[in-house]
Amino acid sequence: MTRLKRSWVDSANAAETPFPLNNLPCGVFSTADTAPRCGVAIGDMILDVGAADLGLHGDLFAHPSWNAVMGAGTDTWVALRAALTGLLADGATPRPDLLTRQADATLHMPFVVAEFTDFYAGRHHATNVGTMFRGAENALPPNWLSIPIGYNGRASTVVVSGTDIIRPHGQTKAPDADLPSFDPSRRLDIELEIGAVIGGSNPVGQPVTVAQADAMIFGYVLLNDWSARDIQAWEYQPLGPFQAKAFATSISPWIVTRAALEPFRTPTPGRERELLPHLHEPGPMLYDIDLSITMAPPGGAPTTVARTNYARMYYSSAQQLAHHASSGCAMRTGDLLGSGTISGPDRDECGSLLELSWGGTEPFMLDTGETRTFIEDGDTLTLHGHAQGDGYRVGFGTCTGTVRPATTHPE
Amino acid sequence: MTRLKRSWVDSANAAETPFPLNNLPCGVFSTADTAPRCGVAIGDMILDVGAADLGLHGDLFAHPSWNAVMGAGTDTWVALRAALTGLLADGATPRPDLLTRQADATLHMPFVVAEFTDFYAGRHHATNVGTMFRGAENALPPNWLSIPIGYNGRASTVVVSGTDIIRPHGQTKAPDADLPSFDPSRRLDIELEIGAVIGGSNPVGQPVTVAQADAMIFGYVLLNDWSARDIQAWEYQPLGPFQAKAFATSISPWIVTRAALEPFRTPTPGRERELLPHLHEPGPMLYDIDLSITMAPPGGAPTTVARTNYARMYYSSAQQLAHHASSGCAMRTGDLLGSGTISGPDRDECGSLLELSWGGTEPFMLDTGETRTFIEDGDTLTLHGHAQGDGYRVGFGTCTGTVRPATTHPE
Repeated sequence: MTRLKRSWVDSANAAETPFPLNNLPCGVFSTADTAPRCGVAIGDMILDVGAADLGLHGDLFAHPSWNAVMGAGTDTWVALRAALTGLLADGATPRPDLLTRQADATLHMPFVVAEFTDFYAGRHHATNVGTMFRGAENALPPNWLSIPIGYNGRASTVVVSGTDIIRPHGQTKAPDADLPSFDPSRRLDIELEIGAVIGGSNPVGQPVTVAQADAMIFGYVLLNDWSARDIQAWEYQPLGPFQAKAFATSISPWIVTRAALEPFRTPTPGRERELLPHLHEPGPMLYDIDLSITMAPPGGAPTTVARTNYARMYYSSAQQLAHHASSGCAMRTGDLLGSGTISGPDRDECGSLLELSWGGTEPFMLDTGETRTFIEDGDTLTLHGHAQGDGYRVGFGTCTGTVRPATTHPE
Repeated sequence: MTRLKRSWVDSANAAETPFPLNNLPCGVFSTADTAPRCGVAIGDMILDVGAADLGLHGDLFAHPSWNAVMGAGTDTWVALRAALTGLLADGATPRPDLLTRQADATLHMPFVVAEFTDFYAGRHHATNVGTMFRGAENALPPNWLSIPIGYNGRASTVVVSGTDIIRPHGQTKAPDADLPSFDPSRRLDIELEIGAVIGGSNPVGQPVTVAQADAMIFGYVLLNDWSARDIQAWEYQPLGPFQAKAFATSISPWIVTRAALEPFRTPTPGRERELLPHLHEPGPMLYDIDLSITMAPPGGAPTTVARTNYARMYYSSAQQLAHHASSGCAMRTGDLLGSGTISGPDRDECGSLLELSWGGTEPFMLDTGETRTFIEDGDTLTLHGHAQGDGYRVGFGTCTGTVRPATTHPE
């Protein structure tokens, strides 16, 4: 097993830090008097990568986004990681001039999202939701065991962790109502997901294998696919979710690279139905990543409402990407693929409030004594994730958002 | 009624030209020895707008796309149209140095697509397809008369007219098969649509009215939403079309501006169910645009297989855009909104082969004597559209594509 790599940045050697030298996740930061630029997290600091002389070709850090690096391909990714590891390793000449305290920094979107696709590839989640919406016998749609089902989401509303979420308006129809009404959502929810960040592209008409797809994944983020369940219920037939998911998707500010996650690879589960050849996997494509959700009411302390693991997924991001390109669809640098909600078999492993409250019928209790089914105004929802190594962690930090009241609608 | 505006470009004064001075559609062109740049069509010529001194502020034509103009807003659009009209009007000093023959030019994508959304807002099409898939009693989904139903499509595969279309692979399952297979699509289809091209944006959380939405539409294109019906049938439940629509969407090379279409405004039809306030229209929001589809087998002459009109739509693009932003979803310059398939009540007014062949059960005949249900390799499908004025036309040109055989899939 890989061990902690020690750094001259002391805080990076603590067993509980999400950001040891083994990690080196990619973000964009600014301070009160400096503009946004690329950085990597190391302990409780951020290294300004554009200011360091890393000996790389090309102008990779001219813009405050990681897209140039993501599009530069594997050789550049390997060279960059080696250069950063050398620069920050214990024994190298300390360069405190390149560091900014995370406490002093504002974090921004780490990359420009080209297009956002969201999947539905967690079997426990699909079974839970299907049971609620269609009954236990029809819980899993007939195609589910053959296709990593996905739909195109909205890239313009992918926001960085910390951005407030405005409760959306939308059309909803109560089961006993004849006609819909247009109001703020009353069943606002989260979805705990991992997002795969794509670097590289395939031309139109040229699909990729799962192995090629895996090589096109630059890294992963925590992803919260905020969802208005009442809007979704009325709109989603026959063409899928639209405005119920369009108002916001939050991601963690740090992209954890695929390289940093290599020690934590784990296989997808056994297949009840054999997959068609274009989805065959050449090796383990999931990762052992502990995930949790905390919920804090206004002014109250957070309660952990669920714990699960990314290894619960049925389909990997590489399979999803290969399926996405299987028609000849061109995939591009900056594409973001949400894994789908990650739930386990037990109630306290559920990645959405819809499941935690079983469709709103079974309120759950917070440590403050308050109960919840869906999100109330002022609630803060936070996703947490890390892979646990031998004496070190590769962490994502958090992905958080506070829900604000609906604004007045123009008429 | 508006009349023909005469130009010193003779070919722009012919009654049958799609591109009189009244039109001035926006495209991007190159020649054998010049790079792609912005131009407007005038008769059988293209005016190089970046080379003309139009007295406009800002660097609007630095890139070979219309996005900068689209994002600059209404005042710029009005000023540009006035300047171009003045430059090209009969009586102005002829400037043949600014003209390139269309016959000598290659046309490119006229704008960079930010995100692509496709709607399902034609009532005859929705009724036809619903009848085939769900039976006549359930043809129109319960939400259809309340919501302009849409789904997010794929922007990376929007291509300009003339681009070959590679037949996609995908998972399909025959009704009598136990399991799906992965093969080239056998039910490849078109969808005749009009695409609205957005200029301007709304911030996250700030919806727009229908009137505001209308003002954010820079112009319109012909749009062919190529569709693999067999892939769609197996994949689309529960989250909507995905790979069945991801491989290609073709658009006409010319954006016909909203200003050019003003004389042809016409109201949406009477409402069977009153619309909710956020979809109320302040005035006529459709356009009287004659549309047709031609189909040519390999080496054969084209046959007109359908004629219809954009006024057949139930929801306008402005309503679709207002609905799209109703949750607070941010819309941006470069967004492309497909109207949905435009069909009329009769069989020869249908905007898809699915309807023309009634689900593949009733082959139709081409003028060459061949019959078709869906598209065969080598077939060329072309959309045509124009608004008919008093002695002049405002035309879109054509949107065409030839289907090529599926390529070998990687394994």
